[in-house]
Amino acid sequence: MNRFGRLFTVTIFGESHGPGIGVVLDGCPPGISLQPVDFEPDMNRRRSGAPGTTPRTEPDLPEILSGIFEGKTTGAPLTLFIRNTNVRSGDYSKLKDIPRPGHADFVAMQKYGGFNDYRGGGHFSGRLTAALVSAGVVAKKILGDTEIRAKLVEAGGSSDIEKAVDEAVKAKDSVGGIIECRVNQIPQGLGEPFFDAVESAISHIVFAIPAIKGIEFGSGFKAAAMRGSEHNDPIIDESGRTASNHAGGINGGITNGNELVFRIAVKPSSSIGKPQQTLNVATGDVEELVVEGRHDACIALRVPVVTEAATAIALADLFQVNKSIYQ
Amino acid sequence: MNRFGRLFTVTIFGESHGPGIGVVLDGCPPGISLQPVDFEPDMNRRRSGAPGTTPRTEPDLPEILSGIFEGKTTGAPLTLFIRNTNVRSGDYSKLKDIPRPGHADFVAMQKYGGFNDYRGGGHFSGRLTAALVSAGVVAKKILGDTEIRAKLVEAGGSSDIEKAVDEAVKAKDSVGGIIECRVNQIPQGLGEPFFDAVESAISHIVFAIPAIKGIEFGSGFKAAAMRGSEHNDPIIDESGRTASNHAGGINGGITNGNELVFRIAVKPSSSIGKPQQTLNVATGDVEELVVEGRHDACIALRVPVVTEAATAIALADLFQVNKSIYQ
Amino acid sequence: MNRFGRLFTVTIFGESHGPGIGVVLDGCPPGISLQPVDFEPDMNRRRSGAPGTTPRTEPDLPEILSGIFEGKTTGAPLTLFIRNTNVRSGDYSKLKDIPRPGHADFVAMQKYGGFNDYRGGGHFSGRLTAALVSAGVVAKKILGDTEIRAKLVEAGGSSDIEKAVDEAVKAKDSVGGIIECRVNQIPQGLGEPFFDAVESAISHIVFAIPAIKGIEFGSGFKAAAMRGSEHNDPIIDESGRTASNHAGGINGGITNGNELVFRIAVKPSSSIGKPQQTLNVATGDVEELVVEGRHDACIALRVPVVTEAATAIALADLFQVNKSIYQ
Amino acid sequence: MNRFGRLFTVTIFGESHGPGIGVVLDGCPPGISLQPVDFEPDMNRRRSGAPGTTPRTEPDLPEILSGIFEGKTTGAPLTLFIRNTNVRSGDYSKLKDIPRPGHADFVAMQKYGGFNDYRGGGHFSGRLTAALVSAGVVAKKILGDTEIRAKLVEAGGSSDIEKAVDEAVKAKDSVGGIIECRVNQIPQGLGEPFFDAVESAISHIVFAIPAIKGIEFGSGFKAAAMRGSEHNDPIIDESGRTASNHAGGINGGITNGNELVFRIAVKPSSSIGKPQQTLNVATGDVEELVVEGRHDACIALRVPVVTEAATAIALADLFQVNKSIYQ
Repeated sequence: MNRFGRLFTVTIFGESHGPGIGVVLDGCPPGISLQPVDFEPDMNRRRSGAPGTTPRTEPDLPEILSGIFEGKTTGAPLTLFIRNTNVRSGDYSKLKDIPRPGHADFVAMQKYGGFNDYRGGGHFSGRLTAALVSAGVVAKKILGDTEIRAKLVEAGGSSDIEKAVDEAVKAKDSVGGIIECRVNQIPQGLGEPFFDAVESAISHIVFAIPAIKGIEFGSGFKAAAMRGSEHNDPIIDESGRTASNHAGGINGGITNGNELVFRIAVKPSSSIGKPQQTLNVATGDVEELVVEGRHDACIALRVPVVTEAATAIALADLFQVNKSIYQ
Repeated sequence: MNRFGRLFTVTIFGESHGPGIGVVLDGCPPGISLQPVDFEPDMNRRRSGAPGTTPRTEPDLPEILSGIFEGKTTGAPLTLFIRNTNVRSGDYSKLKDIPRPGHADFVAMQKYGGFNDYRGGGHFSGRLTAALVSAGVVAKKILGDTEIRAKLVEAGGSSDIEKAVDEAVKAKDSVGGIIECRVNQIPQGLGEPFFDAVESAISHIVFAIPAIKGIEFGSGFKAAAMRGSEHNDPIIDESGRTASNHAGGINGGITNGNELVFRIAVKPSSSIGKPQQTLNVATGDVEELVVEGRHDACIALRVPVVTEAATAIALADLFQVNKSIYQ
Repeated sequence: MNRFGRLFTVTIFGESHGPGIGVVLDGCPPGISLQPVDFEPDMNRRRSGAPGTTPRTEPDLPEILSGIFEGKTTGAPLTLFIRNTNVRSGDYSKLKDIPRPGHADFVAMQKYGGFNDYRGGGHFSGRLTAALVSAGVVAKKILGDTEIRAKLVEAGGSSDIEKAVDEAVKAKDSVGGIIECRVNQIPQGLGEPFFDAVESAISHIVFAIPAIKGIEFGSGFKAAAMRGSEHNDPIIDESGRTASNHAGGINGGITNGNELVFRIAVKPSSSIGKPQQTLNVATGDVEELVVEGRHDACIALRVPVVTEAATAIALADLFQVNKSIYQ
Repeated sequence: MNRFGRLFTVTIFGESHGPGIGVVLDGCPPGISLQPVDFEPDMNRRRSGAPGTTPRTEPDLPEILSGIFEGKTTGAPLTLFIRNTNVRSGDYSKLKDIPRPGHADFVAMQKYGGFNDYRGGGHFSGRLTAALVSAGVVAKKILGDTEIRAKLVEAGGSSDIEKAVDEAVKAKDSVGGIIECRVNQIPQGLGEPFFDAVESAISHIVFAIPAIKGIEFGSGFKAAAMRGSEHNDPIIDESGRTASNHAGGINGGITNGNELVFRIAVKPSSSIGKPQQTLNVATGDVEELVVEGRHDACIALRVPVVTEAATAIALADLFQVNKSIYQ
């Protein structure tokens, strides 16, 4: 359940307040150069610190526990582990009885019969996206020249993102956003009918990122209001280039070599400074909760690099599958 | 690649113009009553015939090739096969050289080195959704009391769906739409962190349906413009009922027992009567193409029952996994 | 559960006395020539008719339900279906209450809560090996020049196989045997640490064949009595050729390019003409059972071609995985 | 590839001379008590130190990196990591050019294009069985009352095991052995047709243990010389108890509730003190090699606890699958 992929597989583990978080990458080709320093750019992008993000600033560089020899991948499973160092357990003890609205606290308690690690959301914590980003660094290397770029294009319904975030911070509240991801130099032919469409693979892993509420490819929800004569993208040369790109680079679930484009909706983070109503499951009373600890006023600020990682992982797996069977 | 699920798995096969289409369902519990007549309601809903859909009206009742004894599932793989009977191959021979815009014709040719069955889209044809619907009939039975209802709520940007479709038919064009799906009496605790969130499972299979461009859960893309104080759903009783349902029945990727709600965007179907520009890959010239044969002016009309089937399959699998490990 | 393989996957279905048996092959490369006549040699080898085998002589040529276009594989799932034509249900109705010793009748009843198709063993029937053999025909084609040859080398403890079988037939009894399988022109590097050793993959699928009680590779059980200095195979040239072959062509779970050799033990078939004691589960009494219907005095006679098919399927899958990641 | 299981899955990683070895266990039910001390008995059994085993005596108690809270499993992935502490890299540098006979050195070099970590066999090292044993400790807990006991019953062809090992030590050589494994109080109904027979699952994981050359269930290879009338086990009561147990507790791939019995053949370990001939791949010459470092004269002495772990993992997975679908 905590594994993604058919050939290039990512197994994720860890909790917010346990010893740490990590991933095992299996099916990684040998001979890929990989140094600790390679993780820095993306790990730093995910790290908090910017206005609108929490001040939790662990360095978050993974230790490589296996799969590397003389600075290159060996073909054996590659394990990346990020030890938790900046944990304040005291903040979260209330969660046992008072599940935070919008979080997984209540359902986790139900599902795991009360045995879940509820501190900081445990295995459900957004902190696990750091492990995902570290896996994405490797996946990007597998993809070679393919360029994956995601950015926040809207927050709180506005393209003036800075302003939207500032207002949310001042209101001790949070605000959602929209991420756009574009992939260029992508090989043609990735994706498999019937069930492993490129959209299937990407959406599967993207919805594993906490706080995502929607995803659309190419024309997306706008397509619902369009005519076929307008939506169809005319092919204009033998490489498959199209005059428009309503398809978002995908036909029949398969990359057509044009730019892959998708957008995702990020909800406002559930942890806010403002008081909220919620149930005390021990007493059965609805009471007021103020979530203490560290909050992100706009969690969407940290999602672009996570989206890139998720996309890279999904595409690297499809790339390996395609290479095996059709080449 | 043509398989979905971990425990209740669906393997799909077949082509539009080959002998037929079908599915193998593995991991189906024994003792479920299953008669040929059980397939009729949903298969009829998917069949064409309504204004805006094609006149191809095969009866489409599956033959049960295995897995049934004395009217009940046995626990062995259940195979459903729908023989193609109404095939007119002559319509499609041009596709070899002239890929239809918006279809998988071009990418399929590239991916499979020219060996793909291009007639009617072959394995990429929307006809395979008939097999999916037949699998959905079984999945719904596994889910018992859970109610899954999908409907078309918008076509061509309007809630006057009939009018939007009529206009498209008259213009020899096609139009997209939006489907809303609601699931009630759903067990709490379905879905798995980190990678098998309910949204991951549903979106994975939903994007296998041809023509889908987007999916959103609960508040969806609207969440991007909301504040956390507004978006969080207060829990109001010990069963986990919430006062609002922006979450769409899911927290942390896990069903919380409230109504599961999602919407999907369906693009206008790519086959239209209107002339279009496309590339002749044999000559290298862009030329005018008129797609002959049978068209759906609004393919979205046929998608609700397919969406229900996809949802049922995803939930039935998560149900079996949850039952195994946590109960 | 009824699926084998990671990339080249075989899903098997069907029952002895239902409509038929079949397989879906997914991950099959496009462009492989495949005609109905290609199935004849191996299907005929499996068919009964020889002394010591049952007189059930269905032609058993599979219908290709999907995945073929103009005589070649398309890259889409390939479905092979063999309709049952020579079914005499009356023979088997007693099995409901009186499970045959050595068969799966009793455990199937328990496992499936009485819903299993018990006629002729249902899904547990040796008849399903016909579907496996048909899949093996395709797998052998994927492997190209690799030669897989299995033969019966011993029956009833003797290398005079004909005599051993004759004696069993006369005694209305059955007799076991040993199959030896040798694979030549096998690529180096197939098999994956840690869990997908070549021996793991082959033994996994070989034990799916009914009546197999043991498997050994290279020196096999004899290795237990040997010294390391004697067992180690000296490498004598740069291609990896070894002077001896105690390893059976495998080191560390990976093919080393030398001949792959293994042997399997086949038990005497459980259905015999002689009267046997067994429990009547309806009455709770132990009573005498004479299994009527068709028997194989030496089921091992039919196992070589099934072993080849199983081996080809396992190797074809490992071949595709190896190609994807390491080449 | 480095993962085993469908629901209770084990992902293994690590190298002999890297930072360490470990496993991620996914699909582990919540609420299972697990203390570091629980690992001691089995880890100690696997540790070297006895006559005939190497003097490498790392404590080998795993650190629990995730999945435990307040001494109990949480339902999230459980990660066990054993840091390598007693590594002497200098011993192994020759392996780069001079592959040890009987080891994976040569094939690993070929398969991974020379990027494999060859020190001490790297990912192919028998040291990874320590990680397997740690996973087995958890699997045994999942199985509850089921008792799994494996022991060495023969070494060097003799039941006087001590003597056989002493002689091998004196000869600077090594000797093979036979392990017998018996499982009692095993639930009826484990195992799945067609491909996931109990024998398939157990043999798959058993052949992942280095040095295993054969496996047989119940009557095993002896069955090949038996008659059906002799081999069939009469059922004598309604629980399915049988008068004899040639089946080894399995019919049709499914546990019948009687004792599960199997035996495995272990080859003599490949590393011996005696000089051996092998190829220097750098020079192309055959030369004499004396493998320095630490050797096991009878690696089979350490295999029983590994066999138990492998068996427990396979059965725990089948147990979870069976529980999900049929109960």
